[in-house]
Amino acid sequence: MADKKMVEAITSMDEDFAQWYTDIVKKAELIDYTSVKGCMVIKPAGYAIWELLQRQLDERFKEAGVQNVYLPMFIPESLLQKEKDHVEGFAPEVAWVTHGGLQPLQERLCVRPTSETLFCDFYKNDIQSYRDLPKVYNQWCSVVRWEKETRPFLRSREFLWQEGHTAHATAEEAEERTVQMLNVYAQFCEEVLAIPVIKGQKTEKEKFAGAEHTYTIESLMHDGKALQSGTSHNFGDGFAKAFGIQFTDKDNTLKHVYQTSWGMSTRIIGAIIMVHGDDSGLVLPPKVAQVQVAIIPIQQKKEGVLDKAYELRDRLKGSFRVKVDDTDKSPGFKFAEAEMRGFPLRLEIGPKDIEAGKCVLCRRDTGEKIETALDDVEETVAKLLETIHHDMLEKARKHRDAHTFIARNMEEFEKLFTAAAQGDRQNAGFVKAMWCGEQECEDIIKEKLSVTSRCIPFEQEQLAETCVCCGKPAKKMVYWGRAY
Amino acid sequence: MADKKMVEAITSMDEDFAQWYTDIVKKAELIDYTSVKGCMVIKPAGYAIWELLQRQLDERFKEAGVQNVYLPMFIPESLLQKEKDHVEGFAPEVAWVTHGGLQPLQERLCVRPTSETLFCDFYKNDIQSYRDLPKVYNQWCSVVRWEKETRPFLRSREFLWQEGHTAHATAEEAEERTVQMLNVYAQFCEEVLAIPVIKGQKTEKEKFAGAEHTYTIESLMHDGKALQSGTSHNFGDGFAKAFGIQFTDKDNTLKHVYQTSWGMSTRIIGAIIMVHGDDSGLVLPPKVAQVQVAIIPIQQKKEGVLDKAYELRDRLKGSFRVKVDDTDKSPGFKFAEAEMRGFPLRLEIGPKDIEAGKCVLCRRDTGEKIETALDDVEETVAKLLETIHHDMLEKARKHRDAHTFIARNMEEFEKLFTAAAQGDRQNAGFVKAMWCGEQECEDIIKEKLSVTSRCIPFEQEQLAETCVCCGKPAKKMVYWGRAY
Repeated sequence: MADKKMVEAITSMDEDFAQWYTDIVKKAELIDYTSVKGCMVIKPAGYAIWELLQRQLDERFKEAGVQNVYLPMFIPESLLQKEKDHVEGFAPEVAWVTHGGLQPLQERLCVRPTSETLFCDFYKNDIQSYRDLPKVYNQWCSVVRWEKETRPFLRSREFLWQEGHTAHATAEEAEERTVQMLNVYAQFCEEVLAIPVIKGQKTEKEKFAGAEHTYTIESLMHDGKALQSGTSHNFGDGFAKAFGIQFTDKDNTLKHVYQTSWGMSTRIIGAIIMVHGDDSGLVLPPKVAQVQVAIIPIQQKKEGVLDKAYELRDRLKGSFRVKVDDTDKSPGFKFAEAEMRGFPLRLEIGPKDIEAGKCVLCRRDTGEKIETALDDVEETVAKLLETIHHDMLEKARKHRDAHTFIARNMEEFEKLFTAAAQGDRQNAGFVKAMWCGEQECEDIIKEKLSVTSRCIPFEQEQLAETCVCCGKPAKKMVYWGRAY
Repeated sequence: MADKKMVEAITSMDEDFAQWYTDIVKKAELIDYTSVKGCMVIKPAGYAIWELLQRQLDERFKEAGVQNVYLPMFIPESLLQKEKDHVEGFAPEVAWVTHGGLQPLQERLCVRPTSETLFCDFYKNDIQSYRDLPKVYNQWCSVVRWEKETRPFLRSREFLWQEGHTAHATAEEAEERTVQMLNVYAQFCEEVLAIPVIKGQKTEKEKFAGAEHTYTIESLMHDGKALQSGTSHNFGDGFAKAFGIQFTDKDNTLKHVYQTSWGMSTRIIGAIIMVHGDDSGLVLPPKVAQVQVAIIPIQQKKEGVLDKAYELRDRLKGSFRVKVDDTDKSPGFKFAEAEMRGFPLRLEIGPKDIEAGKCVLCRRDTGEKIETALDDVEETVAKLLETIHHDMLEKARKHRDAHTFIARNMEEFEKLFTAAAQGDRQNAGFVKAMWCGEQECEDIIKEKLSVTSRCIPFEQEQLAETCVCCGKPAKKMVYWGRAY
C-alpha cells in the first residue's frame, strides 16, 4: 500500500514549490514526522544519503589532518555564559535539562546547540605547550535548537551535523584553517553533491555568535531561494580569553590560542532535494545515491530474465551500489518508483535484450536512454555515472547563473525581489549589489523585502560606485537573497 | 610535556586493578573528564577505536539486512509511560528537559535512555500491511542514563551505542532475529576484538525492562569480573499491544507485530582494555588499532634512515594503518609510547638494518622480536597481525577458562567469591553453578556476596542435581559473577 502511494503524482514544482518539497520528502521516504514536535525520523532512504555524505566528507577531513572526538551533549549553564556574544546568540533557543533521575539538578544543563564552550573547557586543560598545538578536532553528533517554525532537513529542533573545533598558536594559522575548511566544503559540494556554491564572508550582522568573522558557502535552490550550506568561523582569541586557554610558546611566554569552528549539517540534504529534484521526484547525485543502478527486469517471469538480472547485479556490485527490483509490481510502476527515489541509472533487461546481448540504461537526470552491449555494461555504467555527476553540476551552475541578477540601485533591487515574492520564478535568485558596509542598510533591506545579505563573495566585482540602499560610497559587492 | 607524563610507569594490575584501568584510560589518552559530572570526552585515540569498531560492526549489520535510521533524542513523558515495565525500569534514571528556549514545555521530555518507545511510536504509523514487514532498523547515537557512580567507558551518564529495533509478522521470526543478532555480536567480539564470550539468556531478574526475554554475551575481564558486552531482547508482542502496532496479514486479519531490540555500546572499549591490557599499557586487537604498525627509526639523523622509514610507510599504507614516529624523542621513549598506546606492531629500522636489508618487528602482545628482510615486510606484517589476533583471542580464552570455576554447593560457592573479594585474583572469575529457577535464590546470593547471575548459557551442563543456594531440584546451570 505504501508503495502505491509513493508513485502517485507529486505536486509540481511550479505549482507549489513548498508542497513539492514536502511531497518528495514523504514519498521518497526520506523522513517521517514524530510525536516530538519539530523532530523527525530520518528513514533508511534519507539516512543512507547522510551516511554516504558523512563517509566522503570525513575522508576529506582526515586528509586535511582532522581527528574525530566526542564531547558531552550537555553544557552547564555557567559554561555557556562564559562568552558573552555566544550566550546571547544561543540562550533563547536551547533546551534545558533541569532534572536528573528523580532529583532536580543543582545547575541546569542545556542540550548542546553547538559545542564551542565544551571544546574550550576541554582545551583549557588539554593544551599547555606549543607542542600540544594545533588541535584539529571534529565531532559527528546531533544538536538541538528550539526553533519555532520547522521543516524537514531545513530547520528542525534536532539535527545531525559535524562540528570541527581547532586551536592554533597564531592568528595566521587559525585564519588559514578557517579558509581551508571552507574550501573543503566547497569542493565537497561540487565534487560529491554536484552543487555549485558561492564562497564568501558573512557580514557582521550575519556572522556566528562569538566569531570574529564567518565564511560561508551559499547555494541557490531551484525556486531561487538561497541556502547556507556550510560555515567556517574564525574566533581569534576571544573564546581563549574568556575561557583562559593559554600555552607556553617556544619563547617561553604564555599566550592565548586562536580558534576556529566549522560545520555542515543534514540541511544539506534539503539542498540536494531542492537543487536537483524535479516533478518526478528526487534526483540523487551518483556519489550519495544508495542505489546507483536500479536493475528492472522486463517480463521477469520469462525464463532466464531474473537470472540475467542477478548476473548483471553480481558483475556490477563490486564497483557500484546496485539493486534488482524483483518484486511483483509492473515495470512501469518500478520505473516510477526508481524515479521518485532518485536512483541515477535504471537498467532495463528483458527477453529481447538478452537475445540481442544488450540492455538499456536510462538516466534519471535527463531521461535519456542508452543501449549498451551486455559485455560493456561495467564500462558504460562507470562513464554514465561520471557524466551524470558532471551534467548535474553544470545544469545547477547554469540555473544559478541564470538566476543571479545585478541591481545598481534600490529601484532595480526592489523590482527583482518584489517580482520574486509575487511568484515570478524567472526573476527569483541571488542579487548582486554594492553595499556601504553599514548594518543599517542590511536592516532596511531585511525589513522591506525579507532579504538578507548572503555573503561578501571572495570574488569581488565593482558594479557601481554607491550602496544599493543608501547611495553612499560602496565598499563591497554583496550577494543578497531570500534564504531557507 | 603531556608525552612525558604518558610514559611514566602506570600502576601495576596486580597492585590496584581499578587504578591501573584509570591510568591506562588517561595515559593512553583515550578519554578526559569534563565539567559535566559523569560525562567524558572521548579523545582521538579512544574515538578511533570506536570508529573502527563501528565500521566493522555496521558492515556485519548490513550483511544481516539491517538498515540505519535516526530517531529523535527526546521522548515525551506520556510516550515513555506507555509500557509499564519499561517505564519502571528507566524513569528513575533519565534526564528531563523541562524548558525549550525561554518557555516551560507543556509536557516534559526525557533524553532517550533507549529508544523502544520512539520506535514503537514510529512503527505504529509506518507498518500497515504484512508487505511492510519485517522492519530491521538500527541507529548509532548517544543515550543518557543518570547514573550515580560513573567510570570511563564502563558507566557514564552519556554513552555512545547502537540500538537495533525490529518488527516482525511472527513470534518465530522475532526469536530468530534475537538470536541472529546475538550471534553477530559474539562473532564480532571474537573475530574483531579477540574477546571470547559466553552466550546465554538473562534470568527474569536480570532481563531488560519490558522484554519477554533477554540474551546476552558475557566476557571475563583480567581481574575476574564479568562484563555484559552486548544484549539482544525479544519483546514478544508486549510493546505492540501497548502502542497499538498492528498490520493486516495475508489472511486479511489484523495482528500485532513481534519486536526485538539489541545493543552494543562504548562499554566494549572498557572490555578491550581489561581483557587485553598489561602493565605497559593498552594492547589493541589489530582490527581496531588506529596504528597497526608504528615505524620507529633508530639513529634517525643518520642519512637515509628517515627516508627508508617513509618508504616503508608508503609501501605498507595501502594495506595497513601505519605511522612513522619521526619526532625528536629517543627511540626508547618512542617504544614506551607505542606500547602505552597498544599498537600491535613496532617496526624498528636503523642504519645497520638498512645495510643488512632487514628490519625488526616487535609484537606488542608478547614482546617477541622478529627479523624480516625488507623485501618481505608486507607479507610478514600481514601474517603477524593475523597471528597476533589469533594469539590474543586464545590467551583471553585460556585466561577465562582458567578463571571459570564450578561450585556444587553454597560452601564452595561462598568460598570462591569470598577469596575473590579478598583480592585472591587466582580464584576470581565466573562460577558455574546449578539453580532452581527462583528469583529468591538470586536475591540471597546478591545480598550475601554481591554476585549476580550473568547468564543461563546456551551450552548447558548438569553439574549437580540441586540448586547451589536452596538445595531444591536444579533447573538450569548458570554463570555467576561479580560484574562491571
